[in-house]
Amino acid sequence: MSWEDGFRDSPYHRFLGLEFALNDGVAEVRMPFREELVSDPDVPYLHGGVIGALLDIAGDYAVASQLGRGVPTIDMRVDFLKTAGREPLVARARVVKLGRSIAITDAEVRNEQDELVAIGRILFSTR
Amino acid sequence: MSWEDGFRDSPYHRFLGLEFALNDGVAEVRMPFREELVSDPDVPYLHGGVIGALLDIAGDYAVASQLGRGVPTIDMRVDFLKTAGREPLVARARVVKLGRSIAITDAEVRNEQDELVAIGRILFSTR
Amino acid sequence: MSWEDGFRDSPYHRFLGLEFALNDGVAEVRMPFREELVSDPDVPYLHGGVIGALLDIAGDYAVASQLGRGVPTIDMRVDFLKTAGREPLVARARVVKLGRSIAITDAEVRNEQDELVAIGRILFSTR
Amino acid sequence: MSWEDGFRDSPYHRFLGLEFALNDGVAEVRMPFREELVSDPDVPYLHGGVIGALLDIAGDYAVASQLGRGVPTIDMRVDFLKTAGREPLVARARVVKLGRSIAITDAEVRNEQDELVAIGRILFSTR
Repeated sequence: MSWEDGFRDSPYHRFLGLEFALNDGVAEVRMPFREELVSDPDVPYLHGGVIGALLDIAGDYAVASQLGRGVPTIDMRVDFLKTAGREPLVARARVVKLGRSIAITDAEVRNEQDELVAIGRILFSTR
Repeated sequence: MSWEDGFRDSPYHRFLGLEFALNDGVAEVRMPFREELVSDPDVPYLHGGVIGALLDIAGDYAVASQLGRGVPTIDMRVDFLKTAGREPLVARARVVKLGRSIAITDAEVRNEQDELVAIGRILFSTR
Repeated sequence: MSWEDGFRDSPYHRFLGLEFALNDGVAEVRMPFREELVSDPDVPYLHGGVIGALLDIAGDYAVASQLGRGVPTIDMRVDFLKTAGREPLVARARVVKLGRSIAITDAEVRNEQDELVAIGRILFSTR
Repeated sequence: MSWEDGFRDSPYHRFLGLEFALNDGVAEVRMPFREELVSDPDVPYLHGGVIGALLDIAGDYAVASQLGRGVPTIDMRVDFLKTAGREPLVARARVVKLGRSIAITDAEVRNEQDELVAIGRILFSTR
């Protein structure tokens, strides 16, 4: 199975309903809204943990598109700028450094109004 | 609704099947295995994004148990030490600093063999 | 004393011999080479801790140029991409978010060949 | 030259006046106060960049004591909890994980009253 098929066939990616695309070296991952991802029973905003996962997936996808295989995450750091509601989100990631041991990626998540929801810097092992 | 009921009634927490407990100031969150959380179609290990979410939830729970309310995440940093398979996981978190503006928490995720799967440091806004 | 004079009169900034400039909202901090900043007695590369400090200072300077005052650092995260030798370095920082409680900045350090030495994401308290 | 001599002979470590010790696997680095490290000309507190460097050095020292050689820093993350004044500081670090590619360390800086000044998580390359 190709790495791209692996991304599409991942049970977790399927559960999230992710769509993948590459544009000029920028990895793009779209996520539709889903009720199961709501954080608070009263205020319907999306759980931050899912936004973190989306950044991680976009970074992985950016590296995979260059290496031809998915890579394990070493560490991830996420800053939350704005809560997201009942809305689709898009994550975009690019590779900052592709080394023999480590790849560094920068990723961001935006809502439909193109507002910044979160930013992430994620390290992957390229060994 | 109390903050504890809010944690239990969160759609995302319910989807993950989380169980919450407090032991001597340590917040404990148990997560059963679920097929939808698998990362790779071929190798059945748990998606790192979910492990990150679990650390975030445990940190939030630790702060909430002291403040009496859930708090928004400012930033989170997660280090992955070991992949997790088809197994339940437990996250534990404690509050390192509870300030007027910011709370700092340290959290870890362990598997059934008590091996360290991931560690996280998560900041929350206490305003 | 103005915030700019405060930056220039800081004993640590003076010791490092820093020069400050603003270009279209980008804060720029230049640091000459100094023997006291060498890490290893045998291999003359610059100590990473100093590069971290330079990123922090550039981020602070970027926020100060918008707020009119220096601000305390909440947390900083630095990725090291390349060692620096007996050479001057320049750090550039921009404000990603300027909120009522928190400012997020992105900073980078480059050498004379314009190669990326390190990148940093630094949070400041704006209260 | 042994790695320990390398730590002691580092020009930057000498400039900072660092003293190194190992206690039951915990690396300890003491730093006296120095006027050149003051951040603000009016309020005499220590520059955060120096505290970050101290955490990095302590983490490196902890790994070196196990590997028998200093190791390059991959990334560092520092949380500042309390400003430090005209006072000596002590950093302590321990190795959380010593892998074939990466070592993870946890470090903290305390003042003379044993109050927590900063905490850091620092990754090193062990290749």
